[in-house]
Amino acid sequence: MRTDGMLKDDALKGQTIIVTGGGTGLGRSMGKYFLEVGANLVITSRKMEVLEKTAQELEAETGGEVLAVQCDVRDYEQVENVLNQAEERFGQIHGLLNNAAGNFVSPTERLSHRAFDTIIDIVLKGTTNFTLALGKKWIAQKQAGTVLNIVTTYAWTGSGYVVPSACAKAGVLAMTRSLSVEWAKYKIRMNAIAPGPFPTEGAWSRLLPGDLIDKFDPAKLVPVGRVGDHQELANLAGYLMSDYSAYINGEVVTIDGGEWLMGAGEFSHLEKVPQEMWDMMEAARSKK
Amino acid sequence: MRTDGMLKDDALKGQTIIVTGGGTGLGRSMGKYFLEVGANLVITSRKMEVLEKTAQELEAETGGEVLAVQCDVRDYEQVENVLNQAEERFGQIHGLLNNAAGNFVSPTERLSHRAFDTIIDIVLKGTTNFTLALGKKWIAQKQAGTVLNIVTTYAWTGSGYVVPSACAKAGVLAMTRSLSVEWAKYKIRMNAIAPGPFPTEGAWSRLLPGDLIDKFDPAKLVPVGRVGDHQELANLAGYLMSDYSAYINGEVVTIDGGEWLMGAGEFSHLEKVPQEMWDMMEAARSKK
Amino acid sequence: MRTDGMLKDDALKGQTIIVTGGGTGLGRSMGKYFLEVGANLVITSRKMEVLEKTAQELEAETGGEVLAVQCDVRDYEQVENVLNQAEERFGQIHGLLNNAAGNFVSPTERLSHRAFDTIIDIVLKGTTNFTLALGKKWIAQKQAGTVLNIVTTYAWTGSGYVVPSACAKAGVLAMTRSLSVEWAKYKIRMNAIAPGPFPTEGAWSRLLPGDLIDKFDPAKLVPVGRVGDHQELANLAGYLMSDYSAYINGEVVTIDGGEWLMGAGEFSHLEKVPQEMWDMMEAARSKK
Amino acid sequence: MRTDGMLKDDALKGQTIIVTGGGTGLGRSMGKYFLEVGANLVITSRKMEVLEKTAQELEAETGGEVLAVQCDVRDYEQVENVLNQAEERFGQIHGLLNNAAGNFVSPTERLSHRAFDTIIDIVLKGTTNFTLALGKKWIAQKQAGTVLNIVTTYAWTGSGYVVPSACAKAGVLAMTRSLSVEWAKYKIRMNAIAPGPFPTEGAWSRLLPGDLIDKFDPAKLVPVGRVGDHQELANLAGYLMSDYSAYINGEVVTIDGGEWLMGAGEFSHLEKVPQEMWDMMEAARSKK
Repeated sequence: MRTDGMLKDDALKGQTIIVTGGGTGLGRSMGKYFLEVGANLVITSRKMEVLEKTAQELEAETGGEVLAVQCDVRDYEQVENVLNQAEERFGQIHGLLNNAAGNFVSPTERLSHRAFDTIIDIVLKGTTNFTLALGKKWIAQKQAGTVLNIVTTYAWTGSGYVVPSACAKAGVLAMTRSLSVEWAKYKIRMNAIAPGPFPTEGAWSRLLPGDLIDKFDPAKLVPVGRVGDHQELANLAGYLMSDYSAYINGEVVTIDGGEWLMGAGEFSHLEKVPQEMWDMMEAARSKK
Repeated sequence: MRTDGMLKDDALKGQTIIVTGGGTGLGRSMGKYFLEVGANLVITSRKMEVLEKTAQELEAETGGEVLAVQCDVRDYEQVENVLNQAEERFGQIHGLLNNAAGNFVSPTERLSHRAFDTIIDIVLKGTTNFTLALGKKWIAQKQAGTVLNIVTTYAWTGSGYVVPSACAKAGVLAMTRSLSVEWAKYKIRMNAIAPGPFPTEGAWSRLLPGDLIDKFDPAKLVPVGRVGDHQELANLAGYLMSDYSAYINGEVVTIDGGEWLMGAGEFSHLEKVPQEMWDMMEAARSKK
Repeated sequence: MRTDGMLKDDALKGQTIIVTGGGTGLGRSMGKYFLEVGANLVITSRKMEVLEKTAQELEAETGGEVLAVQCDVRDYEQVENVLNQAEERFGQIHGLLNNAAGNFVSPTERLSHRAFDTIIDIVLKGTTNFTLALGKKWIAQKQAGTVLNIVTTYAWTGSGYVVPSACAKAGVLAMTRSLSVEWAKYKIRMNAIAPGPFPTEGAWSRLLPGDLIDKFDPAKLVPVGRVGDHQELANLAGYLMSDYSAYINGEVVTIDGGEWLMGAGEFSHLEKVPQEMWDMMEAARSKK
Repeated sequence: MRTDGMLKDDALKGQTIIVTGGGTGLGRSMGKYFLEVGANLVITSRKMEVLEKTAQELEAETGGEVLAVQCDVRDYEQVENVLNQAEERFGQIHGLLNNAAGNFVSPTERLSHRAFDTIIDIVLKGTTNFTLALGKKWIAQKQAGTVLNIVTTYAWTGSGYVVPSACAKAGVLAMTRSLSVEWAKYKIRMNAIAPGPFPTEGAWSRLLPGDLIDKFDPAKLVPVGRVGDHQELANLAGYLMSDYSAYINGEVVTIDGGEWLMGAGEFSHLEKVPQEMWDMMEAARSKK
C-alpha cells in the first residue's frame, strides 16, 4: 500500500478540470491531487461558503489555481453558468469529474416518491446536465475532452436500502458507456470509477449511530481488510483524467478491495469453516 | 420456432395483472397472452381512446376481462388511481408489467436537456412510481406480488444514439435487482426482460424512412437471422409473471436471437472471411 | 410457487435429447421432464449400473424411451460413441444438455494441480468435447440443433473455495456465448442455466457434516427463503430446450431465488438493522 | 495521448516480477517498463534463445537485472523450477504477470478437439499452474504478493472464431475474481487487464494475409480510431502491479479504446446515418 501521489508531476499540466461536489470529501481529495499534478481546478456545490473555504485551502496547500462556483446540478442554467465562468477564468475546459451525489440509506417502502425523485435528479440528471452542456460546447468548439464519473459497485448488481441511488448510478454508468462510443469521434473520452468504502469525516457515524458502526463496520466486508485511503482513489482518478489513459474508454474501474466480489461469490462465505473441518473433510475424501 | 402459447391454460388463472403502455404494440401482445392463460387485465396509457378500443378487442378475442385506465406514468397520483381502480374492479392486484416507455433515436448532442429529462421521467420515474406505489400497497396489505420490467440489451452495455433511454433502462434494471432482494421478505418477486428487435406496426419505417430501412434492417444484425415474433416474447413474459418461475428472482432474461453478443464479440465479424481464405490459412498453419 | 410441469404436453415431441450426467440428481430430473413432454432421452455417465437403473425407472414412470450409454466425457472417442449410438437408436439428435460436472469444495491452496486439472477436464473439456463432436455432426449433416449448458452463478463473479469449478464453468459460459453467435448460421442454438441451490440427495450433508449444515444452510442465503424444487429447474430447461425459446440465444438464465444478488449488493446486508433503528434515523433526518 | 512512462521512478523498486511469455511482444514491453521503475525481472517462454536475447537487450536498455528461464507453462514441474530459480537469484518473488497465451483464429468446426485442448492447456492451465504454485509458496512463506493476468474483452462476451481462447480466458478471469477474495487474507492480491488491439510485429499480417488486413483493419472497430501503444498497456500494468493499486482487487480493467462497447451497443451502428438524414428526422419530429 502506497499513499503518495503516483503520477509524474506534469500529468495534468495546464489542464482545467471541473469537479462537481468538489467542496468536501472525496471530491475535494481528487481535486487536490489534480492540482498537485498541474491542473487548474473548478469546484462546484450548492454551498458557496464551503466552496470558498476549500478553494482557499487548496490554493494554499498546492500553489494551484481554484475557481469556486455555486451550482445546483439539477438546474441546467446553473450548470451552463459554471462552464461559462470556467472558460472566462481559464480559457478552456479539459476535463469534468461528475462527483456530486446524494443518497438515502433506508428501506425503500419508507421513501416517498419525492425523496426517490430527488436522488434521481441530483445523481442522474445532475450528471447528464453537466455532461450534455459541456459535450455540446466541446463539439461546437471542436475541442477534445475527458469525462470521469463516480458510480458505485451496486450500479450493476443493484442493492437494497439504497435503491434510488442504485437506479441513478446505473443510469450514469450507461451514459458513460454510451457516450464513450458515440462521442469518441469528437475526441471526447469517458470513463467511470466505482469506489468501495472510502470514509469521509463523520459520514458513517451519522449514518449508523451508536454501536451500529461496529456491527456494520464496512472494513469487515472487504477482503483486503480495510477501507480505502483517499489518495488511492485520487491516484486512479488522476490516471483516468490524464492523457496517460487515452486508450481506456467506456470503462468503469472498481476500487473496493474486492468488496462486491466477496459477497457475490456463492461459496466465499465458507471462509468461516474452521481449518480442522477442512482437515476432516480432506481425510474423508482421500479415504474413498 | 413455435409461436403458439406454450404454458398450460391455467398458468395465470384468477390473477390480476397491470400492463403499462398496454394499449398497443408489445404491451398489447403480452397482455393478450396473460388473458389467454386466465388473468384479468388492467391496461394503461395516456390515450384513453386507444385503450378502450384495445380493451374491447381483447375481451372479444379472449373472453377475459380488461379494465382500461388512463394514466401518465410520470404522475404519482394518476398511478395510485390506477391501483385503486384495479382493486375496486378485481379485488386484488397480483402482477405488474412495467412496459410503458419512450425513446428518441438521435445523436445525443442534438437533444435538449428537456428531451433528455422526458425520457428519464417516462421510463425510469414511470417505472419507479408504479413499483413504489404498488409495493407500498402490497407490503401494507401483506400480499405477495410479481413485477416484470421491460428493459433493453443496452441497459448494461449502453448504446449511442439512444442515450436517454439507455440511462433510464439501466436504472430500471438496477431497481429490478435491488428490490428483488430487499422486498423478497414481503413475497414480492421482480424480474426483467431485455427484448431485441420485435417489430411493431410502422415503428421502424417511421424511424428510418425510405431505403434506410434496408440499410439498417435489424434482422441483419441478429445471429438467428430474423426479428422476433410477439408470441415468443409473450411466452417468456407469461412464464416470468406466473408462479412457475417462483425461483427466478432479480434476473433479466435477454430474448434477442443473440443480437447483442454478435456485436460484442471481438472477432465475431470474421464471419465475413470467405471459406477459401480459411482453407488457405489452415494449409499455411499445418505446414509449420 | 408451482411445481407441476408448465409446458404444453407436446413441447419436445419426437425430439431426441442427450443429457450428460443424466443418471442421478438434477440431470435425472430434467431428463424426466423432457420425456414427459414428448422427447426421447439419451443419458450418459461413467456408472453404467446407475444409468441402466435410471433408464428403466424413467421409462416406467413416463412411458418414454431412454437409451443409457456409458461415457467419460473427458474421452473424445467415448463421446463420439454416444452420438453414434444415439443416432442408431433414434435416427437423429435434436438437443444436448451438458450437465455432467465435478467439484471440490476446498481452500484452493490445499488442492494439488492434478485435482485442479481434473475439474477443468470434466467440466470444461467434457462440455467442449460433447459440443464440438455434436456440432461437427450437425453441421456436416445440415441439421438444426439446440445445446443447453449448466453453469453456476459464480461463473461470472468467481467464488472462493470452488475455484477449479469457477474457472471451468466460466469457460462453459464463454463457449455458450461464442458458439451461439458463430454457429447460428447453421441453425444451432445455445443457452445456459445458472442454478442456485437445488439440493440433491445427501450432497450437502456429505459436504458439510454434523451441525455445519445448519450453520451454512443454503436457504438462509436466498432472498426468497428456500432452496429450489427440481421441477422448477426442469420447467426452465424444458423451455430453453424447446422451440418455444427459439429467439433466446447465447443467454444464461439464473434461477437462484436472488441468491447471488443478495450477496453482491453493497448495502443489502442492512437487512439486519432493526425497525426501531430505521425509525430513529428517519426521525433524525426529518428534523434537519 | 501520452506514451511516456507515467509512474514515479521507484514504483516497483526492489520487487521481483515474473512475466510468462516475456520474451516477445506485449510481455516484453510490460517487462521492460517494470524494469524502468525499479523491478528485477524474470521472463519465461518455451524458446530459450529468444528469451536470452531479450534478457540481454532489456538489461542493456534499462540497466536492470533480468533472469531468463525456459518453461512450458503446461508442465507444473517446469513452473516450480522457474519459481525456485527466481528465488535463488533474487531472494523473493513479489509479483507474477500471467501473460503467456496461444490462440487459433478459425471457424470452430474446423478445429480438432486436440487443438481446442491445446489452447485450454496453455492459457488456462498454464495460468492456474503458475498461480497455484506461487500462491502455495507465498502462503507457506507468509509473504504478500500480487498477480496480474492478461485476459481479453471476449472473456465475458465470448466471441466467434477464437472459441478455445474465449473459454480459457474466461476461466482465467474467474480465477482472478475467485482468488482475489479467497487469498486476500494471505495478502495476495489479484487483478486482470483486458487489452484491445495492441499490434505486435507481424502478428496481424500473418493472421490476415494480403488485402484482408485492410478489410479487417482492427483500428476501424475502435471508437477512438486507433490501435493501442505498448506503453499505454505498460503504464496500466505497472500501476496494477505496484502498491499504488493496493485497494484494487479482483478487478479486470479494459483498455481497448471502447472497442467491445461499440459492437455491443444495439444502436451504435447508426453512426453511419448521414447528418442530413438526422436533420430530416428532426424536422419531421418537431412538426408533430
